[in-house]
Amino acid sequence: MTVPRYLSGDAAGIREFLDKFDVFLFDCDGVLWSGDHVFPGTVETLELLRSSGKQIVFVTNNSTKSRADYKKKLEALGIPATTEEIFSSSYSASIYISRILDLPPNKRKVFVIGETGIEQELHSENVPFIGGTDPSFRRDINPEDYKRIATGDESLLDPEVGVVLVGLDFHLNYLKLSLAYHYVRRGAVFLATNIDSTLPNSGTFFPGAGSMSAPLIFMLGKDPVSLGKPNQAMMDAIEGKFHFDRSRACMVGDRANTDIRFGLEGKLGGTLGVLTGVSSKEDFVNGPTRPMVYLDKLSDLLHAAR
Amino acid sequence: MTVPRYLSGDAAGIREFLDKFDVFLFDCDGVLWSGDHVFPGTVETLELLRSSGKQIVFVTNNSTKSRADYKKKLEALGIPATTEEIFSSSYSASIYISRILDLPPNKRKVFVIGETGIEQELHSENVPFIGGTDPSFRRDINPEDYKRIATGDESLLDPEVGVVLVGLDFHLNYLKLSLAYHYVRRGAVFLATNIDSTLPNSGTFFPGAGSMSAPLIFMLGKDPVSLGKPNQAMMDAIEGKFHFDRSRACMVGDRANTDIRFGLEGKLGGTLGVLTGVSSKEDFVNGPTRPMVYLDKLSDLLHAAR
Repeated sequence: MTVPRYLSGDAAGIREFLDKFDVFLFDCDGVLWSGDHVFPGTVETLELLRSSGKQIVFVTNNSTKSRADYKKKLEALGIPATTEEIFSSSYSASIYISRILDLPPNKRKVFVIGETGIEQELHSENVPFIGGTDPSFRRDINPEDYKRIATGDESLLDPEVGVVLVGLDFHLNYLKLSLAYHYVRRGAVFLATNIDSTLPNSGTFFPGAGSMSAPLIFMLGKDPVSLGKPNQAMMDAIEGKFHFDRSRACMVGDRANTDIRFGLEGKLGGTLGVLTGVSSKEDFVNGPTRPMVYLDKLSDLLHAAR
Repeated sequence: MTVPRYLSGDAAGIREFLDKFDVFLFDCDGVLWSGDHVFPGTVETLELLRSSGKQIVFVTNNSTKSRADYKKKLEALGIPATTEEIFSSSYSASIYISRILDLPPNKRKVFVIGETGIEQELHSENVPFIGGTDPSFRRDINPEDYKRIATGDESLLDPEVGVVLVGLDFHLNYLKLSLAYHYVRRGAVFLATNIDSTLPNSGTFFPGAGSMSAPLIFMLGKDPVSLGKPNQAMMDAIEGKFHFDRSRACMVGDRANTDIRFGLEGKLGGTLGVLTGVSSKEDFVNGPTRPMVYLDKLSDLLHAAR
């Protein structure tokens, strides 16, 4: 395995590297910001890339937000962005369901474990759904529910559901898990927006979307198709939308085993690791998944602007 | 591997088999009853064993009920039993915490994910606990909670918690999962009453206690110590209570990979499989985990009474 090249402070090396690519796919948290703290130089670096004619895509596994929500988040952090530049796992899942899955006409409904971001993106692709933020699913299971589920009562188990889509749900409960399990047992396709076990918040970690799928994976003995990084279904969806030449695209991220792996398995022309997030220099230089180049921080790219 | 002996209809073989044992450990659902249906002859068979001087122990992974609750359940089904004959995973866990775990004096509190059965058994062993059925944990997580958890706010993360015990919880939620995760990260011992992925109900399956642990296992990258079958911590607890000679004890069950395995790994003198539950004759005769003997149904033991 090759050793990644360290480019911080190497203006000529950076210029040479940037010239190889037309498209930069960005992981966000740990690259552009951490929590609520935007790294110094983030806005200027993105501006440098845009002014050099590069296409920027913000790739996020965050499934609780729609692209429109995520644009607002970026802008609240002071990072200019367009909705078109944003590619989230909820959008990726919606595209997969509407354009790639070939569902029978009477099985097109999606049972959602997740928040409003998923609902908005399913709506944008005209995919019918139930569950999600509907308050009627935010309740305890009762003795009648067991019987209704066991007998396939159509007032509780909608016969048109052909997909179970699991994302991060702050209102996960026993009823939703029971329904999701029975839908998949009855033949529904099992999808996840992403399978990150944790979600960073307030400088620590909380249960991520993958932890919502974990009970179902254990009960069913099977994994969902994940529409987030590092699953290549997401890369296919991104390519399908932006129609770029993979050899002229570079993935930028802080996690070797998700971001960099996502770029490598997607056979992109380049991968760029930054040391402002999860992975360490040791991970990048000696780990099993190594970027092509790495920087102390993203804004070191600004050295190329002289 | 030896082929298990089939004893149905073989009165002499049954008598010879029964004579080898003083103690019979019974799995319940699938052996004594199925759902709400008690198998014909169950009561008479238990009476035969008791009248022959055998000790009976009902061993159940059901963590939602205390032993007293479980006794009521048995009696409601028409099966006479004493509390002392019942050994549940919640009781097993309570004994493990109070008598086996050597916790520092300021770390003796248990954070419970589970229902009242666990609470009652912890109470019976004088183990302090929080969580469980306390309504103050049955709520949505809020933005303040993230910060309080991240900073280790003692009004939310009790510094005396030294154990997280996870059983079946019909009110599992994001807040409880977040707290359990952070307690274990801060050094709490990670225990589970049992790790069954599913729970039988109404002729089908619903999420079991193991599905409550699944998100935590995924987030933490480690397994809990399970105090239910087939984990030997439960066998040790049973032996610690009943002080029996393992070579004179027999495990009776319907599942090769849990009940029979539990008896075999516990080096009991015998294992008896019945075909009224999950495992098939094929499983018992040709599977990787085989009982010493098997019967079509438990009440075939009554043939020995002639």
